[in-house]
Amino acid sequence: MSAGEIERLIQLLARLPGLGPRSARRAALQQTAERVVSCGRCGNLDSQDPCSLCVDPVRDDSLICVVEEVADLWALERSGAFKGRYHVLGGTLSALDGRGPEELRVASLVERASDTKVIEVIFALGATVDGQTTAHYLAERLAGCDVRLSRLAHGVPVGGQLDYLDDGTLTAAMRARSPAASS
Amino acid sequence: MSAGEIERLIQLLARLPGLGPRSARRAALQQTAERVVSCGRCGNLDSQDPCSLCVDPVRDDSLICVVEEVADLWALERSGAFKGRYHVLGGTLSALDGRGPEELRVASLVERASDTKVIEVIFALGATVDGQTTAHYLAERLAGCDVRLSRLAHGVPVGGQLDYLDDGTLTAAMRARSPAASS
Repeated sequence: MSAGEIERLIQLLARLPGLGPRSARRAALQQTAERVVSCGRCGNLDSQDPCSLCVDPVRDDSLICVVEEVADLWALERSGAFKGRYHVLGGTLSALDGRGPEELRVASLVERASDTKVIEVIFALGATVDGQTTAHYLAERLAGCDVRLSRLAHGVPVGGQLDYLDDGTLTAAMRARSPAASS
Repeated sequence: MSAGEIERLIQLLARLPGLGPRSARRAALQQTAERVVSCGRCGNLDSQDPCSLCVDPVRDDSLICVVEEVADLWALERSGAFKGRYHVLGGTLSALDGRGPEELRVASLVERASDTKVIEVIFALGATVDGQTTAHYLAERLAGCDVRLSRLAHGVPVGGQLDYLDDGTLTAAMRARSPAASS
């Protein structure tokens, strides 16, 4: 089953009543989990290992984008915002769920980040407590690697009106405000 | 009717069935619009003119935060993210609704920004097409003033998971990514 076939399955599932595109993607993930393989390098799901994103010669080897789940990788791919390589952690650290570093794909991330080709590791983790804890932990683990560490910007989501935003987002957006060009 | 009294009215209205805190704030705004005065300086609603925020000696005179509506000012006040002065535009430019610059409080903003005490003008406008068009227009109008212009950060809202975000937000968050400290 190729990436195109998965996409086709998602489209078919999305036609079922009560299933939106997001639920369909989830259902598709579950349905195909047994038929697809996990990429040994990045953790993406595909019909080949290494996956099509890992072997794509056009993508930028100097950037690694760390995501929690394969669904996040797909979200970023849909947006077209990122053209480097991915690394799927397989979740976040979670004190509540008792999930520690050994259950995540951390060691292989450190190994990949040690490659001299890699210039920047981007933490594309959720702006949740667990996501930020995980980013902090990864930053410590990667401190020895000669790479730049960055994280997605926090702030007002596109289309967002101030009145609808929570206090934390407003505070983050105000703190991280950026220059507005005049002209 | 003081700001405290408005807050009390909001609390009472929020108890009505079907009215959440946000709807209650809106209802309160409408109900009291006739009894409160609009601050001649910033456009805030209060029982006094200039309003209590404009005369508060503790607030920072060097920062002006431009918002679309009074509700946005209140949202920022609730968050505690900003301790300068406000300027309520009274809406955004809108080609669709035929709202032009002369219907917004732009001239008084330019006048206030020309004060030598003012160092920075922050556009806290929605990340909508109209909000960003308005920010762009204001930046041009303020180009002659000796002030720094900035805007709220766009990105992942606090608590946000990547899988739930739209493409525009992901692209903005990736583009405006910031350094992640390694402890």
